[in-house]
Amino acid sequence: MDVDMIGRTESLFALSNGHIGLRGTFEEGEPVDQPGTYLNGFYELRDLPYAESGYGYPESGQTVVNVTDGKIIRLLVEDEPMDLRYGRTVDHERVLDFRTGTLRRQTLWTSPTGRTVRIRSERLVSFTKRTVVAIRYEVEPIGEDMKLVLQSDLLANEPVPAPGNDPRLAAALDNPLVPALADSEDYSAVLVHHTKRSELTVAAAMSHELDAPDNADVSIRADGDLARMTVAANVPQGTTLVLTKYLAYGWSARRSVPALRSQVEAALAMAGETGWESLQKEQAAYLEEFWADADIEIDGDPELQQAVRFSLFHVLQAGARGQSRSIPAKGLTGPGYDGHTFWDTESFVLPMLTYTMPGAVGEELRWRHSTLDKAKARAAELGQHGAMFPWRTINGDECSGYWPAGTAGVHVSADIANATARYLRATSDEAFEVECGVELLVEIARFFAGFGHHDGNGKFRIDGITGPDEYTAIVNNNVFTNLAAQQALRDAVAVVHRQPAVARELGVTDDEAAHWAACADDMTVPFDEVLGVHQQCEAFTLLDKWDFEASRGRYPLLLNYPYFDLYRKQVVKQADLVFAMYLFGEHFTPEQKIKNFDYYYPITVRDSSLSACCEAVTAAEVGYLDLSYDLMSESVFTDLHDLHSNVGAGLHIAALAGAWTDCVAGFGGMRDFGGEITFAPRLPQAITRMSFRMLVRDSRISVTVEPDKAHYALLAGPPIELAHHGERFTLSDDPQTFSVPGIVTHTPPAAPVGCEPYRRER
Amino acid sequence: MDVDMIGRTESLFALSNGHIGLRGTFEEGEPVDQPGTYLNGFYELRDLPYAESGYGYPESGQTVVNVTDGKIIRLLVEDEPMDLRYGRTVDHERVLDFRTGTLRRQTLWTSPTGRTVRIRSERLVSFTKRTVVAIRYEVEPIGEDMKLVLQSDLLANEPVPAPGNDPRLAAALDNPLVPALADSEDYSAVLVHHTKRSELTVAAAMSHELDAPDNADVSIRADGDLARMTVAANVPQGTTLVLTKYLAYGWSARRSVPALRSQVEAALAMAGETGWESLQKEQAAYLEEFWADADIEIDGDPELQQAVRFSLFHVLQAGARGQSRSIPAKGLTGPGYDGHTFWDTESFVLPMLTYTMPGAVGEELRWRHSTLDKAKARAAELGQHGAMFPWRTINGDECSGYWPAGTAGVHVSADIANATARYLRATSDEAFEVECGVELLVEIARFFAGFGHHDGNGKFRIDGITGPDEYTAIVNNNVFTNLAAQQALRDAVAVVHRQPAVARELGVTDDEAAHWAACADDMTVPFDEVLGVHQQCEAFTLLDKWDFEASRGRYPLLLNYPYFDLYRKQVVKQADLVFAMYLFGEHFTPEQKIKNFDYYYPITVRDSSLSACCEAVTAAEVGYLDLSYDLMSESVFTDLHDLHSNVGAGLHIAALAGAWTDCVAGFGGMRDFGGEITFAPRLPQAITRMSFRMLVRDSRISVTVEPDKAHYALLAGPPIELAHHGERFTLSDDPQTFSVPGIVTHTPPAAPVGCEPYRRER
Repeated sequence: MDVDMIGRTESLFALSNGHIGLRGTFEEGEPVDQPGTYLNGFYELRDLPYAESGYGYPESGQTVVNVTDGKIIRLLVEDEPMDLRYGRTVDHERVLDFRTGTLRRQTLWTSPTGRTVRIRSERLVSFTKRTVVAIRYEVEPIGEDMKLVLQSDLLANEPVPAPGNDPRLAAALDNPLVPALADSEDYSAVLVHHTKRSELTVAAAMSHELDAPDNADVSIRADGDLARMTVAANVPQGTTLVLTKYLAYGWSARRSVPALRSQVEAALAMAGETGWESLQKEQAAYLEEFWADADIEIDGDPELQQAVRFSLFHVLQAGARGQSRSIPAKGLTGPGYDGHTFWDTESFVLPMLTYTMPGAVGEELRWRHSTLDKAKARAAELGQHGAMFPWRTINGDECSGYWPAGTAGVHVSADIANATARYLRATSDEAFEVECGVELLVEIARFFAGFGHHDGNGKFRIDGITGPDEYTAIVNNNVFTNLAAQQALRDAVAVVHRQPAVARELGVTDDEAAHWAACADDMTVPFDEVLGVHQQCEAFTLLDKWDFEASRGRYPLLLNYPYFDLYRKQVVKQADLVFAMYLFGEHFTPEQKIKNFDYYYPITVRDSSLSACCEAVTAAEVGYLDLSYDLMSESVFTDLHDLHSNVGAGLHIAALAGAWTDCVAGFGGMRDFGGEITFAPRLPQAITRMSFRMLVRDSRISVTVEPDKAHYALLAGPPIELAHHGERFTLSDDPQTFSVPGIVTHTPPAAPVGCEPYRRER
Repeated sequence: MDVDMIGRTESLFALSNGHIGLRGTFEEGEPVDQPGTYLNGFYELRDLPYAESGYGYPESGQTVVNVTDGKIIRLLVEDEPMDLRYGRTVDHERVLDFRTGTLRRQTLWTSPTGRTVRIRSERLVSFTKRTVVAIRYEVEPIGEDMKLVLQSDLLANEPVPAPGNDPRLAAALDNPLVPALADSEDYSAVLVHHTKRSELTVAAAMSHELDAPDNADVSIRADGDLARMTVAANVPQGTTLVLTKYLAYGWSARRSVPALRSQVEAALAMAGETGWESLQKEQAAYLEEFWADADIEIDGDPELQQAVRFSLFHVLQAGARGQSRSIPAKGLTGPGYDGHTFWDTESFVLPMLTYTMPGAVGEELRWRHSTLDKAKARAAELGQHGAMFPWRTINGDECSGYWPAGTAGVHVSADIANATARYLRATSDEAFEVECGVELLVEIARFFAGFGHHDGNGKFRIDGITGPDEYTAIVNNNVFTNLAAQQALRDAVAVVHRQPAVARELGVTDDEAAHWAACADDMTVPFDEVLGVHQQCEAFTLLDKWDFEASRGRYPLLLNYPYFDLYRKQVVKQADLVFAMYLFGEHFTPEQKIKNFDYYYPITVRDSSLSACCEAVTAAEVGYLDLSYDLMSESVFTDLHDLHSNVGAGLHIAALAGAWTDCVAGFGGMRDFGGEITFAPRLPQAITRMSFRMLVRDSRISVTVEPDKAHYALLAGPPIELAHHGERFTLSDDPQTFSVPGIVTHTPPAAPVGCEPYRRER
């Protein structure tokens, strides 16, 4: 086992149900890179310092906290601590099982003094009981009887390595939890802590089932930051010491210590009553249903097949049971980005979940809705109308400490509106529309209508903002932002007409809605008539060229070049206009799509993991299918192959969701403009067959693509209107097959020198 | 006396020779707002923190240090400390004398126990002996004999109030000096300290002459942060206790403690040998010469007359004896802006000094030249060619912690080039040209030629920068910046032709110079053809309007609105295009000047003290003479009437220099395009006569303007070519008189609501 890879495997093997996240650390506690137990929404505050302060800069940031660690079951083999760094690892395997939703491990280890044990463990973070974790831990002495000791812990305030060299962040994370209660009885214990500044309380409890020789000594204690059950037993060879550990977590900003204690003890009782085998069964059943809706089959590339399922599984884990909480950029797999949620969620993750697990989308958008007061307050603080959602946040307050790449990214609000409208079109969730959807769309439309303005020529402009490309900031009329805002304004008009009563309660007048429509209709979309391409933002195509030859090997550019120089040149961090051509594709002609792709792809360096998956979709659309395949691979293997060298800090959930997007929207050519589901499938050479499923309103369909044919089948629900390469059809009980039209393929443009898409060795 | 005004008076009564600065604190030490003794170039380092760090951000800043205070002469009247906050101040007056260059004070004070003394003091910071300060302090008991005690101190690490609520800055300034040596003997003492991080050493020494009754007890000691000579005497009524204190300061980054000690002791010996009366005489003689070159007489407004002389005097003090050091934005009058030097110096202060005290300009530019290695290193760090001078600095390293309003202000480098070329045209300082001028101009031209680029249309663009207006940042083709860069490029071409040998040493080829010329010739100057006005920067006139009605009473805007909103709207902090129309006026037609002024003046809020003086010049040029007069008043009274409520932190030297500019370039209409000195005088109603002098190369001229006539006289030197309202003439021994042509006056545009120019009560 390569100890340097531990951080990577901790992220890759992380388990989560969207509410609780456990990194894939070893039960024995060490070796460890980042121990990590996260609860969605649980954070500490820290000061955000500024060399020169400014009005409206956030004064404090939020940082996800590693809460009480219950994963730990230390093992002593005749007084030798089991630690893979010492002795000899004869055999070691871990399996993240996408069907059972468990992390299994098997280790055959010989201690430095020559004693050999076989360890088996399996753990799950329950999808069906969202506050519960269960771990089964088994040790078998090999070749001789042994004295074994197990120490099963709840441990708060574990040392964690400081991310980067920021002393302030390190300080915030140093012993973030203050003990409030510790108790133990029989095989159970509970610890309650609270944070120092954010005033949140967390309770963690554990209980155990033990299958041990009769002579086992068992003791338990709980105090301050540690609760520990110790089992000491003489275990004969050929027998197995089995410990089943149940964990329950709860946190709250409002509930009292006794109330939280009761909550986790009740959850534990329920878990124990359910039992390990039943929890396993429920977990597998939950996953069976997910895969029935979401699985993607790929023939011709087994490694890609596995990677795509890995991706879907982790997106599921990030979104499954958040329940009115966010889906952070790293899910609950690591401390990266401070545990914040960005536009990634609405623009990359929710599109997949909308058509595979729509309930999770409703929950995430209910979280956004629950932060609407903060978004309105932020808008007011910045002199704006309506709601301005934060660039990065845990609790709904803006945490961005650099406004040109934070607050200026106003498209995040449009992204939330667009995700809301997509969800409403793809489901029949009228309760959500009434309770949350109208208000989200109205307040976001109010923001954009007030934020932009009509200039002297009658055009509606959105100036002084930053689009998706963070290497170009504080610009005017970014195409992506303007089209996203246009869509948001139009969807607000539509929802107001659908729900006049709700709209009236929100004070929306006919004049106001008419003004939104006018803003949308008059939206500026800059285009360079000389070059015949869209300008990512106004004047973009007049900027200086970037010297890619000189920057070879100096990626990511932001660590080697100043924003000062990046911003003023034609160098693009991540798909921006190219992403707009996918999400808002109806505003571009096929010829524009090709010319734009040919212009922007060669200046896009993909320093963001949010880039390759978007470029893959448009590449497929314009016929660059093999390039699309390479770009998709880059997105899908971002984490498995650690392409950004930072997977130790957590998975890139948006890039993983990009696997779905690249299959369904890329090679499947799925678009959902106006809620109409259309396909234009076409496979790259390396894939001989691809099949995926989608939930659309009350229908479940499957689409199977072969090199020259595509098959559509209705798996459940009412007939549905679809289209195949522009040909509309109604899919009912009879499956339908269409031929895939050929496309004139051009030679695709070249990526910037040194930025060629990732290619696996095959 | 109003104790709340103390901070203001400390700044207004500050004395400085450009090398040493003393705030106008009382000798008795208290009451005090900011004790302040500054040495030009002496600073401490402090960390610059960032909530989100970025490549190329400066990691440490420089902060001016309050060094060892030698101004203190405490007085005890029969054991009662003299303190104006207690007892009764019968009479109190301070006079800053522009002829003698001294601060005089007279106080008649009755102690809480009823004893009355008359105190007279006078102090000077010597213009002729730049390391020397002298103070005469006299106490006379009134009505009875008294026991008086004087404690004459050198005091290091005085407590200073932290500016703002920045704990880091406060930490840097808390006890910044570490004792290195303390010694005393007879009536003299010396203290040497060094800083903790910047590794600078400062020596301060004092010696005394005492005129006291024979029975006086005198003792002296020196230790750590305090050296003190104590005089205790029974002073009969009708006699006066007189203490003359000489101070000498020296600092160095390289010299040893003994060397610095020797240096200040030698300076003290020289001062003592010269004596108080001779120091006074030298001071007055120095000032007589200054006023002969620089005085401006104004008839019709005595308060303005006094304020203009106040302004000229303080600019003199800031620039007189810096000698290869900078002229900070606050001079040496307070801790504001951390003691940094900005573009103010080259763009506001040097134009005045060029024609009144040219030697000081050469010294200041030699300082810039001495930092050229740092400017080249900064350019290289940011991926640029040539030299990029810092936005704010003490030692030449960039200290700006917010790059959009710092590093992005690249015009500072052009400003330095422009000041260099102006100085070269206005003097005959070929030594400076050879030693410094060519290299400054070449390296700055290299920066701009590499930084801008030719776009597809053959235009030369300068993108992604910030012009003078800090309410609009990260823009493309700011007119001011582009014209300043154009001038810098052309002056570089010219100097390379004048000094081919030096240019060759710097590696300048014909091709390179030709490229500079092409960049200048193709420079983009954005103009709105629809509105018929220049765009402050590209697209500026398309931006949203600012709601001035809503922002009434919320100035300065930067404390009440986010940059996020300010940047994207048509609201201007300070003259930008309007300043360009003065400095680069040959690029604008008279009609454009009127239209531009009418467009920009109503959206300029003058939140910067650098605004009114520039607007006044153009207002005068286009015929808005009374508006010009009001704007000039605002600039001139910025400090005297504390219009920005921050004069306690130091004077606004650039605004003070603006007094000269407004008289000479505003009402005198002086321009120096291409080194040709031209006038277009015209007076506002409130001024009945104005006379000023100028040094141009080897000639000294006087210009006297009356409502309908202007008189030109050559006071010294060779004949000189001039122009009066477009009419060229040669001024030789015979004075010449011209009539002032009338101008069609329009109704001037209105200032933004609530931003009307300052009007004095008269």
